[in-house]
Amino acid sequence: MDSIADKLKYTRDFLDKLEITRPVLLLDENKTRENIRNMAAKVPGEDVELRPHFKTHQSAEIGKWFQEYGVEKITVSSVEMAVYFTENGWKDITIAFPVNIREIDVLNKLAKKIKLNLLVESEEVIDNLEKEIKAKTGIWIKINTGYNRAGIHWTEIDIIQNLAQKINKTENLRFLGVLTHAGNTYSAKSTDEIKILFKESAQRLIDLKNDFYPAFCKASSGDTPGCKIVDSFDFGLDEIRPGNYVFHDLTQYFLGACTPEEISVCMACPVVAKYPVENRLMIHGGGVHFSKEFLEINGKKTYGFATVIKEGSWGEVLNDVSLISISQEHGVISAPDQFLDNIDIGDLILIYPVHSCLTANLMKDYKTLDGRTISTINSKIYIPIPSM
Amino acid sequence: MDSIADKLKYTRDFLDKLEITRPVLLLDENKTRENIRNMAAKVPGEDVELRPHFKTHQSAEIGKWFQEYGVEKITVSSVEMAVYFTENGWKDITIAFPVNIREIDVLNKLAKKIKLNLLVESEEVIDNLEKEIKAKTGIWIKINTGYNRAGIHWTEIDIIQNLAQKINKTENLRFLGVLTHAGNTYSAKSTDEIKILFKESAQRLIDLKNDFYPAFCKASSGDTPGCKIVDSFDFGLDEIRPGNYVFHDLTQYFLGACTPEEISVCMACPVVAKYPVENRLMIHGGGVHFSKEFLEINGKKTYGFATVIKEGSWGEVLNDVSLISISQEHGVISAPDQFLDNIDIGDLILIYPVHSCLTANLMKDYKTLDGRTISTINSKIYIPIPSM
Repeated sequence: MDSIADKLKYTRDFLDKLEITRPVLLLDENKTRENIRNMAAKVPGEDVELRPHFKTHQSAEIGKWFQEYGVEKITVSSVEMAVYFTENGWKDITIAFPVNIREIDVLNKLAKKIKLNLLVESEEVIDNLEKEIKAKTGIWIKINTGYNRAGIHWTEIDIIQNLAQKINKTENLRFLGVLTHAGNTYSAKSTDEIKILFKESAQRLIDLKNDFYPAFCKASSGDTPGCKIVDSFDFGLDEIRPGNYVFHDLTQYFLGACTPEEISVCMACPVVAKYPVENRLMIHGGGVHFSKEFLEINGKKTYGFATVIKEGSWGEVLNDVSLISISQEHGVISAPDQFLDNIDIGDLILIYPVHSCLTANLMKDYKTLDGRTISTINSKIYIPIPSM
Repeated sequence: MDSIADKLKYTRDFLDKLEITRPVLLLDENKTRENIRNMAAKVPGEDVELRPHFKTHQSAEIGKWFQEYGVEKITVSSVEMAVYFTENGWKDITIAFPVNIREIDVLNKLAKKIKLNLLVESEEVIDNLEKEIKAKTGIWIKINTGYNRAGIHWTEIDIIQNLAQKINKTENLRFLGVLTHAGNTYSAKSTDEIKILFKESAQRLIDLKNDFYPAFCKASSGDTPGCKIVDSFDFGLDEIRPGNYVFHDLTQYFLGACTPEEISVCMACPVVAKYPVENRLMIHGGGVHFSKEFLEINGKKTYGFATVIKEGSWGEVLNDVSLISISQEHGVISAPDQFLDNIDIGDLILIYPVHSCLTANLMKDYKTLDGRTISTINSKIYIPIPSM
C-alpha cells in the first residue's frame, strides 16, 4: 500500500497541470457519465420512466450528457431552471416544487413552448391556474407519503380525488397522477431501511393510484438513496426522479448509496496556513464555497473529508482529514501528523463535499480534470481575474 | 396596538407595489445608510481609523454610500473582491485573509495599481512574497488573540518580532503592524461579555504593538459585535474593520449588537402551500437563498424569524413565526393560528436572515424598497425571466 507521502506527492503532481489558483469544484467527466449511465441502465425493461432531477448540476452542458444516455424528460426545482433548460433545448419539464402563483406569466410562456408539468396540492392554486394558464399543462398532485415536508397526506383520499376531478374539469389542465419525494430515506440508518422507506412510500402512492382508474393516474417518486439501493423497479412506480446521483457526495456515501469512487465532484482548496501543534491547516474554502451543510460522523461535525488522487482520479475517503469548521472564506482542517508533514502552504487539498447540490450551486461552475470549465445557470457576469 | 391581521394587511399593501415574483433580498437604503453613518460617526475624535469590511455587501454601489460618509480604505476577504473593488475605484484595500501564494500574479497586478495590504503569518509566505512581489505592499501579521481560527498566538512574541524584522528587510514589503479578528465575541452570552472579549483581544494586540517601536507598528481589530457595543475607541487600537453592521442580521440581534429596526435587509418569500392543522406554511426560500446557517433560540433551531412592515419598513421580530427547516428551494415556516389565518397562498412572508453575509452572497443582488436592483460581484450573466 502506498504511504500517505506517496499519495500526496501523486496528488500534487496530478493537480499541478490544472493551474488552480483559488477554490474550484473539480468534476470527473468519466465518473459523472458513468453515474448518468448506471441509473439510465436500471430502467429499460421495467415499466418505469427516468426523469432525472437537474437541480444538482444546473448545467446545460451536463444536461446534454444525459441526452446521450436516452434521457428526454427532466425535473427541475424552480421556474428559473425550467426557463434555462427550455432555452437549452429541453421540451418536457416537470417543476417539482409547489406552483408559485406569482410566477404565472413565465409559467404561461413555458406552457406555450414546451410540455410543462406542475405540482399542486390545493384548490386555491388550481383555481388560479384554471383562470390564468392559457396552454395545455400537466398537473401532478403532490402527496406527503411520510417525509412530512410538503404535499397532501396520503390518507386524505377524498381530498386527493376531489382535486383530481377539479383539475380534469378545467380546459387546459390535465391530471397526470400522484407524486412524492421520499426524502425520509435521508434519515435512514441502513441501506435496508432506505429500501423499506422507499418502497413503503412508493406503495402509498401506488395504492392511491389504484383508487383512480390506474390507466389515467401515474405514480412518480424518487430520491437518489432509494433509486440507487433498490435492485429493480418492479413494484409499480411509473416514474422516478433522482437527481443527486449525477455527482453523489459524502451524504450519499454515509447512507450507503454510493462508493467513494462514485463521487464525481470534489473541491480543490489552497492551503494558506499550517498549525502543526494543533494538528490543523487553514484552507481557502468556506461557507461561500462548500455551504454550511454538515454531517455528524462518530459524534464529530464535518463539512467535508479529504481525498487523494490515485490512478487518475480521487476515490478514497480520508476520514481523519476533516474540514471541522468554516466561516465565510476560511476552512479549518484537522489532520494527523503524517498528513501535515507532507502538506505545504500553497498545496491543494481535495475535499469531498457533504452536499454536492449546494456546493455546485455556490461554486457556479466546474473544472474538468482536463482543465475545461463547464458553466451552469449561476455562472457569473463578473469574471474578475482574466480581465485584469 | 395593531392586530396581526392589520399588520399583515399593511405589509401586503406595502409589498404589492414591488411586483415581487420570486424570493428576493429586500434592502432598506435609509437603514443601510444609517448603519454606515452610525459607525462612521463613532470614529472621529478618536485615534482610530475605520476600514470597513466589504465582504458582507460585496456591492460597488453600496460601497459608494460608504464614501459619502468619509470612508476611503476598505477590507475584503478574497482576491476576487479586491479586484472587483479596485475596478470600482477603491485605492486602498486590505485583503484580510492569509495570502494564498497561488494568486501571486493577480496580487502583483493589484500591488502595482493600488495601496495593497496583505496578511501573513509564516516565514514561507514572506519568502514567497519577497521573491515574487514587484511593487510596494503593506504587510500585517495576523495574530490569534483568542478566537483560535487563524494567526500566530499572541504569546509568541519572538516569532512575531522575527517575522516583522524579516518583512522589513525585504525590498517591497513593509511591516504595518499586528492584526486580529476577535471572532470570539460571537460566542459571548451578554453584551458585557462582548465588551470584555473585544477589549481583552485588543489589549493583547496593543501589548504586542508596545513591544515594537509603537510608532512603526499599528494594531488592527474589529468585528461588528465588539465595534457596536463599545462606547468609544479610547483604548489604543489604530484601526477597526467591522463589516456586518452595514446590514446586521438575527445573529447580531440575539447577541445584543443591534435592534430589530437596525437590520436593513430582509428576505421576501412567496407562500406556496398552507398546512393549518400542523401550523405550518411552505415558502419558496431554501438553502440556496438563506444559506444553511441557523441559530438555536430557546432550544429550537431557526433559519430565520418573520417580520412585518410598519411605517414604511420592517422592524419587529415575530419569534413565533420561524423558518424551522429548509432544503434546496423549500422553506417550512411554523406559525400560530392568528398568523396563518391572515396569510394566503401567494402572499409574501418577510424573513430576517440569520447571517446576512451568506444570504447576500447567495441572493447575488438586492431590491430596494423603491424597486431598484442593486448588483454585487455575484450578479448573474444569465437573467432568465426578462429574456423569455
